[in-house]
Amino acid sequence: MTRERVYLYDTTLRDGAQTAGVDFTLQDKIVVAEMLDRLGVDYVEGGYPGANPTDTEFFSEHRTKRAVFTAFGMTKRAGRSAANDPGLQGVLQAKAAACCFVAKAWDFHVSNALGISLDENLVQIRETVKAAVEAGREALVDCEHFFDGFKANPRYALDCARAAFEAGARWVVLCDTNGGTTPDEIAAIVEKASAVVPGGNLGVHAHDDMGLAVANSLAAVMSGARQIQGALNGLGERCGNANLTTLIPTLKLKPEFAEQFEIGVDDEALSGLSQLSRSFDELLNRTSDRYAPYVGANAFATKAGIHASAILKDPRTYEHVRPESVGNRRRLLISDQGGKSNLLSELARIGLEVDKDDPRLNALLAMVKEREAQGYAYEGAEASFALLARRALGRVPDFFTVESFRVMVERRHNAHGELVTMSEAVVKVIVDGQPLITAAEGIGPVNALDVALRKDLGRYQPFIADLRLSDYKVRILNGGTEAVTRVLVESTDGDESWTTVGVSPNIIEASFEALVDSVAYKLLKAGASPP
Amino acid sequence: MTRERVYLYDTTLRDGAQTAGVDFTLQDKIVVAEMLDRLGVDYVEGGYPGANPTDTEFFSEHRTKRAVFTAFGMTKRAGRSAANDPGLQGVLQAKAAACCFVAKAWDFHVSNALGISLDENLVQIRETVKAAVEAGREALVDCEHFFDGFKANPRYALDCARAAFEAGARWVVLCDTNGGTTPDEIAAIVEKASAVVPGGNLGVHAHDDMGLAVANSLAAVMSGARQIQGALNGLGERCGNANLTTLIPTLKLKPEFAEQFEIGVDDEALSGLSQLSRSFDELLNRTSDRYAPYVGANAFATKAGIHASAILKDPRTYEHVRPESVGNRRRLLISDQGGKSNLLSELARIGLEVDKDDPRLNALLAMVKEREAQGYAYEGAEASFALLARRALGRVPDFFTVESFRVMVERRHNAHGELVTMSEAVVKVIVDGQPLITAAEGIGPVNALDVALRKDLGRYQPFIADLRLSDYKVRILNGGTEAVTRVLVESTDGDESWTTVGVSPNIIEASFEALVDSVAYKLLKAGASPP
Repeated sequence: MTRERVYLYDTTLRDGAQTAGVDFTLQDKIVVAEMLDRLGVDYVEGGYPGANPTDTEFFSEHRTKRAVFTAFGMTKRAGRSAANDPGLQGVLQAKAAACCFVAKAWDFHVSNALGISLDENLVQIRETVKAAVEAGREALVDCEHFFDGFKANPRYALDCARAAFEAGARWVVLCDTNGGTTPDEIAAIVEKASAVVPGGNLGVHAHDDMGLAVANSLAAVMSGARQIQGALNGLGERCGNANLTTLIPTLKLKPEFAEQFEIGVDDEALSGLSQLSRSFDELLNRTSDRYAPYVGANAFATKAGIHASAILKDPRTYEHVRPESVGNRRRLLISDQGGKSNLLSELARIGLEVDKDDPRLNALLAMVKEREAQGYAYEGAEASFALLARRALGRVPDFFTVESFRVMVERRHNAHGELVTMSEAVVKVIVDGQPLITAAEGIGPVNALDVALRKDLGRYQPFIADLRLSDYKVRILNGGTEAVTRVLVESTDGDESWTTVGVSPNIIEASFEALVDSVAYKLLKAGASPP
Repeated sequence: MTRERVYLYDTTLRDGAQTAGVDFTLQDKIVVAEMLDRLGVDYVEGGYPGANPTDTEFFSEHRTKRAVFTAFGMTKRAGRSAANDPGLQGVLQAKAAACCFVAKAWDFHVSNALGISLDENLVQIRETVKAAVEAGREALVDCEHFFDGFKANPRYALDCARAAFEAGARWVVLCDTNGGTTPDEIAAIVEKASAVVPGGNLGVHAHDDMGLAVANSLAAVMSGARQIQGALNGLGERCGNANLTTLIPTLKLKPEFAEQFEIGVDDEALSGLSQLSRSFDELLNRTSDRYAPYVGANAFATKAGIHASAILKDPRTYEHVRPESVGNRRRLLISDQGGKSNLLSELARIGLEVDKDDPRLNALLAMVKEREAQGYAYEGAEASFALLARRALGRVPDFFTVESFRVMVERRHNAHGELVTMSEAVVKVIVDGQPLITAAEGIGPVNALDVALRKDLGRYQPFIADLRLSDYKVRILNGGTEAVTRVLVESTDGDESWTTVGVSPNIIEASFEALVDSVAYKLLKAGASPP
């Protein structure tokens, strides 16, 4: 049986940018577009060129290889031609393969918000779509408030959809803009809309204001729509858009969908989904939702003892899909035995074969638990874990010792009367019994410490010549005055990247700890001989 | 038209206690039971008496006034009578008005996990229910894996439901234990079950492993079930149970449900729902989900400029229900996504009436956009926004000027040979033309700067006596060596909390900027007179 293609349209970078607390920089947008492209979504909506400097700059280049790179905009204004509407022209001139225009489809909005006649609105939809098609773009129309509009005036809502389709729109997207529509209503209204626009040209754009965005998207597909608009980790205005991170596994793994429909995400990309979801939260510096369907750290976590023993007998008893299929893993929260097996498999992964009855294993497990309670997080800092494990097993040399460090940040007026801020660090290390003292300036205190630490490590210097810091993340744990700071430092030598962690009430000390671990890891990796 | 009653069964204290990371103390359980009772749920499932000391103790007294206080347990074991099963007797002797027993309804589980015959399982269900009824308890049976069981062996799943009902169970609850069933399947299977047990005696227990627990609960009600099991804030094993905090407003406020069904939660309790949801997270010491439907801080937050101006004209344009109905509030966010309307409403909220044609408004909007492009984020830093706006409108005094600051962090061996890290700051400010210089030590560099800055502000000192830093957040934008650091500082004076922002490539400078804004905001708020 041939399966029908369902298209995924990602709006993380547009509707997702309207999430309270989320601000994408240009660099963020570039990284996210690449993530989405690798994942295999069909469309990446990058933003609204002309609306703000970031989006305009983002659309100065084509940012995807596989996905259709799409610019968002509004239909042209009343009272001027498409050619004379600077907003519309901004969207059409953006480097994009498709343009998605939001159009009003609720008569109340046309009269009240736009203040134009119902017919004028239809004219605008048609002329905007035609202008996009003439400019060589694939055209999409987001029918805003389609479902609310349909309930108020079904004929007019359908007129809007028809106008968009007849003017040449590839997709007519029915939007539940306020998120107040139920799956039954979605199903019934999509069915009626498909009498006007074929289902193969209908899309759905659902919001989660009733916790129903995923259900509504699935209901629309079951009623004939073939495009789903959604966002990574459910970003989007208010409660968010339909969560693609939830929808993709359901469409791929649940027979009632997978047997009927096909999407552009392959099994390999699916198996990277949990990682992608967490990397995206890292980029946003948000805590990942541990309870998120499929990809959350607890999505396959079992606390109840009876469930855990049943799962060990047969995973199907309490798992609706295989955790590995979405790159997640099973967690049995009760057993120490489980903890030890995890540890053994992690040690084997970094090349340390340890007998399961080795007493140092219990010591290491206890140390990991204690340090995680202090705020360390080894799941994201594998290089620090490798050092910790080797130290516990007595297999890591102390290449060098830090005797002391000092860092100063000063803001003052310089000789020209300008306010300047400078950062200066001094680091003293002992290598082979010899003290080495170095000083350096930096953009900030951590940069100054990093430069000073790597300036002179004696005979180790050649091993660290290619080492550089590639990312730096700070998280305050607990908040308030008793806060502890966790710093993650990502380093690279061009070949490989690794992450180290430092924890302290003092942010500088935490940062320095992570920097020292990074240098030690590089020396270990490079096979430097110990003192 | 008479509406049919739908009963809410809360399992926060039982299935919710299986949430990874959640541990209720006895006191917690007492507080939560009171919250639920006031809210108006019909049943409070308090736990599993006999399974652990907390639950046993919790059931030593009746803990609810209005709701049916319910003990959870398993059906009796095979091979012994109800009277001789200590587990069952523990449940029956608990101080509860109802008992809910979990029973296997999937033939595969009966044979594999229980290792008994299919008929023996039916006998256990019947005898357990009878024992509860004889003990004067209302009896409920949770048919575990009912939907998966039905798909595997429909006749046997229905036999289990029938056995429970015929033995006298008030409710037969169909559980989607693994959370892998879709709303369409739920609807079809509930309909079939209601041929065996009347809908008025059927309940549904859904899990959120596909993000469909709320939709599945609603689908079951639409197909005839009249009890919904769920939990506050969607607690529960793995991804959680159906979220009652989402379901209650939908059942109360959406006409397609409210016109047909009635629940025990009244309008007043509904208007306290946002507060209840946040208090519950406070009790659990978790961060509230800001994006939660209805009750999240962002559930009615609008960032897009065009939406904001429409909302100000008529809230129905972008709000599916009134935020006040669930005790939430509308927020129009200031950001580069927003327009003049967001800005005007925010200015009005902080007491600045500005004419919408005032040219300074455009200047302020441009400034906000430019600073957000640099990395500032005003939607989370309302105090810094208030200062920026007042400065742009020429209405904020420069209370003091910072002439210079210096901060040093040093790690070295102290006189006892111990490694210690100390942080010291010096700050020089000008107040009324007079230089004031202060020094302080701190836990870290930011703490030292904070203490030094607030140590001596001359005649302003009394105004800032009660000021203290309550939270500190850091985000690195862009990553790598050209990174910019954004710092958010939350301060409080006991009465009020406010947040300020600082941005710089230097983390210390960014922190100091936010600290200075916090002091200025406090002086403004306290009505300190300018120089």
